[in-house]
Amino acid sequence: MNSVHDVPIADATPAAETHAHHGYITDKEKYLNRLKRIEGQARGIHKMVDDEKYCIDILTQISALTSALEAVAVGLLDDHLRHCVVDAARLGGPEADAKITEATQAIARLVR
Amino acid sequence: MNSVHDVPIADATPAAETHAHHGYITDKEKYLNRLKRIEGQARGIHKMVDDEKYCIDILTQISALTSALEAVAVGLLDDHLRHCVVDAARLGGPEADAKITEATQAIARLVR
Amino acid sequence: MNSVHDVPIADATPAAETHAHHGYITDKEKYLNRLKRIEGQARGIHKMVDDEKYCIDILTQISALTSALEAVAVGLLDDHLRHCVVDAARLGGPEADAKITEATQAIARLVR
Amino acid sequence: MNSVHDVPIADATPAAETHAHHGYITDKEKYLNRLKRIEGQARGIHKMVDDEKYCIDILTQISALTSALEAVAVGLLDDHLRHCVVDAARLGGPEADAKITEATQAIARLVR
Repeated sequence: MNSVHDVPIADATPAAETHAHHGYITDKEKYLNRLKRIEGQARGIHKMVDDEKYCIDILTQISALTSALEAVAVGLLDDHLRHCVVDAARLGGPEADAKITEATQAIARLVR
Repeated sequence: MNSVHDVPIADATPAAETHAHHGYITDKEKYLNRLKRIEGQARGIHKMVDDEKYCIDILTQISALTSALEAVAVGLLDDHLRHCVVDAARLGGPEADAKITEATQAIARLVR
Repeated sequence: MNSVHDVPIADATPAAETHAHHGYITDKEKYLNRLKRIEGQARGIHKMVDDEKYCIDILTQISALTSALEAVAVGLLDDHLRHCVVDAARLGGPEADAKITEATQAIARLVR
Repeated sequence: MNSVHDVPIADATPAAETHAHHGYITDKEKYLNRLKRIEGQARGIHKMVDDEKYCIDILTQISALTSALEAVAVGLLDDHLRHCVVDAARLGGPEADAKITEATQAIARLVR
């Protein structure tokens, strides 16, 4: 991995710094690993189509990939509620309301 | 409607009282109306099967009903985040954590 | 139940008669029972909101109802593929193509 | 792309050959392009997490990727119904039934 995120974080805007608090970093490796696997799954599906594998087997892999993505989304949303939304709730006011509205809209897109 | 919820609320546990605050009641009629329509949609699908309507038309109605339910779920979840979760966040501690975990699990069930 | 569908079926258009073949009737009671339960679940959710039950418990019931509806939809789609689509496939021509397109569109609405 | 699928196809089992008929190949480039884009989207989400972008923006990209995958799945399913299932339907017998059961199970996994 060619990421140099430790350096940019030092220079980050206050907003990004707040966001990086509270163990978001702690779980980051877990998310990066899961997303690496997801990339591999996407590449595998491309290869299955290229190799003209049986449709149903390709569909099974797409379902597995979709589930993996949903699990990442739910995990990120949990982190988001636990940190950003809770922080905003403590501050209160319109900022808290806006954070909830934003989270609900993200949930609506995931639920569809 | 034969609900007598105003009386039981007076006797309710503190948790239930907290839950009834903050405009949850205000939107209640909207939810009740939407759920009445949803009941009607479910009854309509039953009748379509009983009348042996065309499968595809029945499936269209099932998709519409599922979307209506998802919209209610997202609305209730928004209310829940806005009231219960925000209240818990302000109190902080393990209670706040437990509320977020519970909300995330509900979201995971909706997203699947 | 006030259905008198046995009589209308006798008078039905040829299309409806074809549709009623092949065991569609056989499973009909199963679908009607499942849809009766689904109506009951919808009524139960209405009552939960009216009684101001805990949001998360209402969301759990909505997820259960959505799953029950999806199971009915998949079952009806299976019947549809097995009968209407297979019949059309045997006849061939643009009718077969149109049936597949129609089925795919119904699937797309279910998958979203 | 390092695929050498033209050669293996020449050696393919009869089942694979049947599967490659009927324009499945024609649309193949379209699927490969869409899946390349999907791989790029997955890589982009990995980078967003690595760069610690805002959670909600990552969730938006996950929703977009999930929708793109669902569109590919519905397209492949349409092809599958149109070719494999229609062919099996014409032959009839237990093979046709097995193909429908298999397709329904794939649909159930997509619908969840």
